[in-house]
Amino acid sequence: MKLSNLLQNSGNKFLQCKLRGEMAGNGFNLTSSAGYSTARQSYDADGKISKRIFADYCIYKGKAALSAAPILPTFSKMGSGFTKIDRRGSIMLTFRPAIGDRKYDSEKKQLFALSVTEVGSFISMGPGDTREFFHDPAMQSSAAGQVRKSLSIKPFTDGYFISLSVANNILKTNERFTVPVTSAEFAVMREAFSFALPHIMGWAHSTNQLPDSPGEDSSKVRQQLGSASEWDR
Amino acid sequence: MKLSNLLQNSGNKFLQCKLRGEMAGNGFNLTSSAGYSTARQSYDADGKISKRIFADYCIYKGKAALSAAPILPTFSKMGSGFTKIDRRGSIMLTFRPAIGDRKYDSEKKQLFALSVTEVGSFISMGPGDTREFFHDPAMQSSAAGQVRKSLSIKPFTDGYFISLSVANNILKTNERFTVPVTSAEFAVMREAFSFALPHIMGWAHSTNQLPDSPGEDSSKVRQQLGSASEWDR
Amino acid sequence: MKLSNLLQNSGNKFLQCKLRGEMAGNGFNLTSSAGYSTARQSYDADGKISKRIFADYCIYKGKAALSAAPILPTFSKMGSGFTKIDRRGSIMLTFRPAIGDRKYDSEKKQLFALSVTEVGSFISMGPGDTREFFHDPAMQSSAAGQVRKSLSIKPFTDGYFISLSVANNILKTNERFTVPVTSAEFAVMREAFSFALPHIMGWAHSTNQLPDSPGEDSSKVRQQLGSASEWDR
Amino acid sequence: MKLSNLLQNSGNKFLQCKLRGEMAGNGFNLTSSAGYSTARQSYDADGKISKRIFADYCIYKGKAALSAAPILPTFSKMGSGFTKIDRRGSIMLTFRPAIGDRKYDSEKKQLFALSVTEVGSFISMGPGDTREFFHDPAMQSSAAGQVRKSLSIKPFTDGYFISLSVANNILKTNERFTVPVTSAEFAVMREAFSFALPHIMGWAHSTNQLPDSPGEDSSKVRQQLGSASEWDR
Repeated sequence: MKLSNLLQNSGNKFLQCKLRGEMAGNGFNLTSSAGYSTARQSYDADGKISKRIFADYCIYKGKAALSAAPILPTFSKMGSGFTKIDRRGSIMLTFRPAIGDRKYDSEKKQLFALSVTEVGSFISMGPGDTREFFHDPAMQSSAAGQVRKSLSIKPFTDGYFISLSVANNILKTNERFTVPVTSAEFAVMREAFSFALPHIMGWAHSTNQLPDSPGEDSSKVRQQLGSASEWDR
Repeated sequence: MKLSNLLQNSGNKFLQCKLRGEMAGNGFNLTSSAGYSTARQSYDADGKISKRIFADYCIYKGKAALSAAPILPTFSKMGSGFTKIDRRGSIMLTFRPAIGDRKYDSEKKQLFALSVTEVGSFISMGPGDTREFFHDPAMQSSAAGQVRKSLSIKPFTDGYFISLSVANNILKTNERFTVPVTSAEFAVMREAFSFALPHIMGWAHSTNQLPDSPGEDSSKVRQQLGSASEWDR
Repeated sequence: MKLSNLLQNSGNKFLQCKLRGEMAGNGFNLTSSAGYSTARQSYDADGKISKRIFADYCIYKGKAALSAAPILPTFSKMGSGFTKIDRRGSIMLTFRPAIGDRKYDSEKKQLFALSVTEVGSFISMGPGDTREFFHDPAMQSSAAGQVRKSLSIKPFTDGYFISLSVANNILKTNERFTVPVTSAEFAVMREAFSFALPHIMGWAHSTNQLPDSPGEDSSKVRQQLGSASEWDR
Repeated sequence: MKLSNLLQNSGNKFLQCKLRGEMAGNGFNLTSSAGYSTARQSYDADGKISKRIFADYCIYKGKAALSAAPILPTFSKMGSGFTKIDRRGSIMLTFRPAIGDRKYDSEKKQLFALSVTEVGSFISMGPGDTREFFHDPAMQSSAAGQVRKSLSIKPFTDGYFISLSVANNILKTNERFTVPVTSAEFAVMREAFSFALPHIMGWAHSTNQLPDSPGEDSSKVRQQLGSASEWDR
């Protein structure tokens, strides 16, 4: 029997990403008013956001669970009528320790948000490659260095170990999660992260074409757009 | 003449996926009320689903036909106003035995739904790789082991043999279908499955941007979304 | 100077795909009522198609021009309220002979529609690979063999020669077009064809999510969709 | 410590693409009426473009900054009711020299618009490959040769040097920008450029399906579209 089979819980595909003490979200506390960018927004009649869609990719293993979900960028509207990206999105990785048979403790979860460039590094991994990313939540502030997170990705026979270490100098804690990810699961992550990349960068928003309104005159559009080339300068 | 040419029915591209005793669907009995997630839903004025689109990729060979179609995930709406994935989608493979020249028996069809992770395994196959997946419809119930399905993918000179075995201990039957898939057909499957993956995972839904309503104020959106990072915890 | 530079017309990027005797379309006679599936359809108030978008990728070389454009599938609506694919789409290749400096004769153009599986074969070409596809417009009719088309793709130092031969036994003609395609142009074709594949198969239609109407109740949707798995049979 | 770490500013991900003397756009002077095709257009009630979305991918290094953004194609409407591409889009690269710690001078920026085929060349780069592209703003006019731009991409241990040279014979200036791009950043560019390619070609517009209007009769659509194949000629 292959190692990948041993690592894989046979019933995984029927399990929803439902975890103790919370709904199957992307790791945020849904009772707060903090943002949930993993979502597709639709608008109520009064223009307020009415819907968000959560669809984490969850990998349950013996000692910990790992879930991944895209966090969309945020935008702000400028006075001049256009919109610009305000904060890039990310791929949020959430680790939860096992506390029994298929039970994982969300209260002890730890997060690691892969930046756009870290996602680029992840999806370009070749066979045998390793990666290690370091985050400091308080970077560039006076509390820099108090909490340090490192995510490492290391190959084994039929997949990768994805590990998160969180060293908290204030609480004097040092947590470590390791999830063995099979080649098949890693292929899902790579494909899904590649798909998500233009979305978390905001390029999917830049290039997305609105359906033309009936009666919209594209020659008018063309006139307004004018020419845009490097020669215009 | 290449083996791939011998395997390929020259007229395949003009054949619709129309089979004896049913319309060209994705293998479900359309007179029942069961779900047809292969579809794009649109809504009638009263909010009911009015349309579904079926577009199986069909491969007809001498002894059996194989068709593939994406099954979208299902979602459920939570009280708090957001939507979460309820059941992941899949790629449904349908095998039908040949019963004459270009005639295939849909009443003897057998299904195999590739899970998200099995799709990841499929699309990451390298040259010479093989795959074998096992399904038990009654897994985790008292009837476990009564029906066992296995799907195998094995390379030959210019493509892959895709075989499904279904052993039914209750009916004392053992069916086996084998479809030789050319490299070109396999490339179509790989590309189409890669395309479908973020859809069956629900990530295409999570990242999809609704067209902004005219008059929608993105600064309001921004305010509501707030910040979402690993540091928020 | 590299061969690719010699083959490339330096001014190509400023040339529109405008050809003698027709507008820059995808090779169809626009004065007829035949279909132009390369288009994005939008609907007038009365539900008629009002817009089509043409965006051929054109490669102009010394002896001939080659353009490529996606042809979308057609669908038909069934009585039971769902839609099924009626005819798969294709990638239409159009060859036109040169009749002067940057002038190409559209009246002598020849078409070759790559099927879904031929597109799969095209995009999976490795370094040094060759391909040859044969079409017979009258296949499976009494006129079979009267007109034979063959498309060949053969590597050279820095790209591929793409050639079309059309032998017409009735008119006693035998035409041949050869266009040297640089590696960069071939990369554009490969990427664009990969992008188009799920669209010409109809999978982009199957998986496409409509924006939810405000007020639409997704729990109702879920109830209607029910479960869809291989175990339902 | 790896070279890539040395090259990467640790705080990059928190930096917006905000530069001296302008908002974080794609390199155009936003006070002029020139077109900003990097944008998603939406329409006010009166049909005017109301929104544009800017989301440059920015790479800040010691001596210069490089940003990239897609420029969408422009279309024009023909009398016969269809729309054709008017000018292909591009990927606009903008270089700005450093003038202090994390400060870059937008007034001295230089642009280079990668054409569709140049993007194909970029995304098909293999390990160790180099590229060099030449642009002449006045090509095919009497001023040809007065200003010459060349973009080169050359590998180093863990990434690529992307350099732009601009030689202006009129102003007697010769500017050169070099930005070391890590493998991870290059992977982001490659993935994002691949995503953008069908958009800047216009194929994303050609293949994009509008949501069906409720009540739209797809059998009517089918009738109007008719058949479209190479045999129609």
